[in-house]
Amino acid sequence: MNRLLAIILLSSVAAHAAPPDPNGVEARLAGAALMDGQAFATVESLSDHIGQRLAGSPAADRAVEWAVATMKAAGLKNVHKEPVKVPRWVRGEESVELVAPARLPLRATALGGSVGTPKDGLTAQVVEVSSVDELKALGDKIKGKIVLFNKVMQRTRSGDGYGQVVGLRGRGAVEAARLGAVAALIRSVGTGNYRLPHTGGTRYDDAVTKIPYAALAAEDAEHLHRLIARGEAVQVKLRLGAHRDGEVMSSNVVGEVPGRDKPDEVVLIGAHLDSWDLGAGAIDDGAGCAIVIETARLLTALGLPARRTVRVVLYMNEENGLSGANAYAAAHKGELAKHVAAMEADSGAGRPIGLSVAGGAPSVALLRSLAEPLRTWLPTDVRSADWAGADLIPLQAAGVPVLDVNQDMSAYFDWHHTAADTVDKIDPIDLALEVAAFSVITHALADSPEVLPPPTAPPRW
Amino acid sequence: MNRLLAIILLSSVAAHAAPPDPNGVEARLAGAALMDGQAFATVESLSDHIGQRLAGSPAADRAVEWAVATMKAAGLKNVHKEPVKVPRWVRGEESVELVAPARLPLRATALGGSVGTPKDGLTAQVVEVSSVDELKALGDKIKGKIVLFNKVMQRTRSGDGYGQVVGLRGRGAVEAARLGAVAALIRSVGTGNYRLPHTGGTRYDDAVTKIPYAALAAEDAEHLHRLIARGEAVQVKLRLGAHRDGEVMSSNVVGEVPGRDKPDEVVLIGAHLDSWDLGAGAIDDGAGCAIVIETARLLTALGLPARRTVRVVLYMNEENGLSGANAYAAAHKGELAKHVAAMEADSGAGRPIGLSVAGGAPSVALLRSLAEPLRTWLPTDVRSADWAGADLIPLQAAGVPVLDVNQDMSAYFDWHHTAADTVDKIDPIDLALEVAAFSVITHALADSPEVLPPPTAPPRW
Repeated sequence: MNRLLAIILLSSVAAHAAPPDPNGVEARLAGAALMDGQAFATVESLSDHIGQRLAGSPAADRAVEWAVATMKAAGLKNVHKEPVKVPRWVRGEESVELVAPARLPLRATALGGSVGTPKDGLTAQVVEVSSVDELKALGDKIKGKIVLFNKVMQRTRSGDGYGQVVGLRGRGAVEAARLGAVAALIRSVGTGNYRLPHTGGTRYDDAVTKIPYAALAAEDAEHLHRLIARGEAVQVKLRLGAHRDGEVMSSNVVGEVPGRDKPDEVVLIGAHLDSWDLGAGAIDDGAGCAIVIETARLLTALGLPARRTVRVVLYMNEENGLSGANAYAAAHKGELAKHVAAMEADSGAGRPIGLSVAGGAPSVALLRSLAEPLRTWLPTDVRSADWAGADLIPLQAAGVPVLDVNQDMSAYFDWHHTAADTVDKIDPIDLALEVAAFSVITHALADSPEVLPPPTAPPRW
Repeated sequence: MNRLLAIILLSSVAAHAAPPDPNGVEARLAGAALMDGQAFATVESLSDHIGQRLAGSPAADRAVEWAVATMKAAGLKNVHKEPVKVPRWVRGEESVELVAPARLPLRATALGGSVGTPKDGLTAQVVEVSSVDELKALGDKIKGKIVLFNKVMQRTRSGDGYGQVVGLRGRGAVEAARLGAVAALIRSVGTGNYRLPHTGGTRYDDAVTKIPYAALAAEDAEHLHRLIARGEAVQVKLRLGAHRDGEVMSSNVVGEVPGRDKPDEVVLIGAHLDSWDLGAGAIDDGAGCAIVIETARLLTALGLPARRTVRVVLYMNEENGLSGANAYAAAHKGELAKHVAAMEADSGAGRPIGLSVAGGAPSVALLRSLAEPLRTWLPTDVRSADWAGADLIPLQAAGVPVLDVNQDMSAYFDWHHTAADTVDKIDPIDLALEVAAFSVITHALADSPEVLPPPTAPPRW
């Protein structure tokens, strides 16, 4: 017995390296994130004082001024705005109603970018499919109909259930219109069942008729499904006031913690400042804005500038077209070779659960060694991923290494893109833990003698 | 070791009586509830084909016809309507908006029975309290203000968190108006955080000015709370189109499984047919309607009439005034002495978790013995309670023994009285288990030589 115990204890010791330095940079960052954390106050301020900030709206302009003031107050240097042209899309009044076999108001909302219906609405029979293949198999039967894309999103910790459905949100209207549909509906891409429609971006193809496309609450999608499954002819009336109202100028907001040694080399940490219009944009992406501003504030307040510059970028219009991401990549084209890494915080405010990097074994190995000080509390799950954040896609395409502190997204898609994206969903302690992990990795990337190899190519977006 | 094991096994055997008869009535009811259950189909039909059925509305009339047809199809005898006068209350258009310190649409809805605001709305500063005592302590400071009652409801399996808050919904407008408030708001009495306002009945006192009273989504109550806690002056604008539109005649719907021995003695099993207007009334109380109709159907289909008559009563207007409950008690006054027991299914569609009876130790003891066949799967938690269902209050007051099959209500108040009270919230297996327990107890009460002693007096309602 004693011998066995000794073996167990020995292997346990052997499996663990020396504990991180209790006086080290990492412990100071984590301690400050918890005990002096301003991240929750930051996202609370953005949510309560600005609230929703759809790109192109007056509220988005106020958010830009808020970001400049907040970054300056946090001690960042070189705080400035960079121009971004964004679409102005207006939701307008909207109502969606089941008209046959019985009248019932449905909870629905236009997808971002959708065209509207005629003023008096549009009524047609609904055909249900769960995939584009199913749609195509119906061929002529789609003509004159409203297509309902009804696919259930799975709840997972990594949030990867989203990627399995969101493609239908992006291309559904185009695919349905090709077959002559007059409008499309999609079961909300989310995991909640609280009669909440989830909006989100959709896309058109200029070669195909643009038809209105709206998200239905899960309950209403189920309702139509039951009727259709019983063989009833289901008619829905859409009245969507959604329309494009040209383009306007807006801004990314940028600030820095200058590097002490190689100030021209950059570790970019980003989040997006815009939000959808239904809630307060607290988890998407006020939390991310707070995480990156707080990371820079802590590095400054603790007197811990790294060898390289840490640059905070709050992107405008991630949600409805990645305008800010493209503008940043274009404006900084000549400087991208000196971007040694880029991370984006755009996964809510859940606890950190691991790390991922768009790269192969050498990238994973280096990141694992940089993450070593986190191993006592963060699962050292460092994995290879295809990408690391929507706003980072243009950087990744240009060869900038991109990585991500993965968060627990189990509940994120209950609220994401809905009216219930409000600040009460954020646990301040989980948010502080995320800041701790994010700031440790940021500092390590900015201070390490080694840099990540170039990334794998991004997926087609 | 072996001796200890033997002792454990022996005590385990001693603690359990012989198993219930596998060919007994109880096993047949439970087997049929699971394998031939129509309860889910019944509530699905009511939810999908009638939907919301606020008392006094045309949909409520359709629900009455649905109930008559469904009870007849289920094989009940003496199916008929009994007249009930109900108020007609109309919600109308409504909007609630934060106007200072910044404009923000709030998710809110008038409480049932509330008066409306002037057509152009009503704007005033908000004062927050969590109890009537706190309100009273503010005295003159309430004058001209909107009172926000902000008390968090606790989630529990028994659902008793509801009773700890719902009193504020009933009397809040009266108490606020006594001190000169111009309107009142209440944090939704519910457990969800999905930006859903929960409606529900409220009351006025003819001696006190009637002021509008609306429920706010939990998120919006939190938002106002944060602003007020920071010392900001919070102004809200209410526009509520709610109004009373006289009274109309409606009906309770009644059907029976006649007793084979003592047909004049009655075991009443009830639920309420009306619902609030926001959702489909699936869990409140379509599920209850399905449970009692299914119980009667199974007793008929299995050829198991009991000695006494089992009477199904679907009450009209439980939600907005207990009109049907009072009408039934008045119309059947001469017969109530022969009502040996009454149960109501009005707790959703969760699993059965125990039994309760409005009575002392002798009532508990008899109910425990009647529930004996359920002990292999239902926790034999039989407890004494103050009451057993809102529609049973007039019967309890008249001396009819009342009891309840308790259901797991952990999730019930996430959806109760909201737009998300839809049929997808019901697990057909849990509903069938509830039918199994409910039908076994109903049959036992209707067949037992012994009857329950008179109940304790009901609480003041």
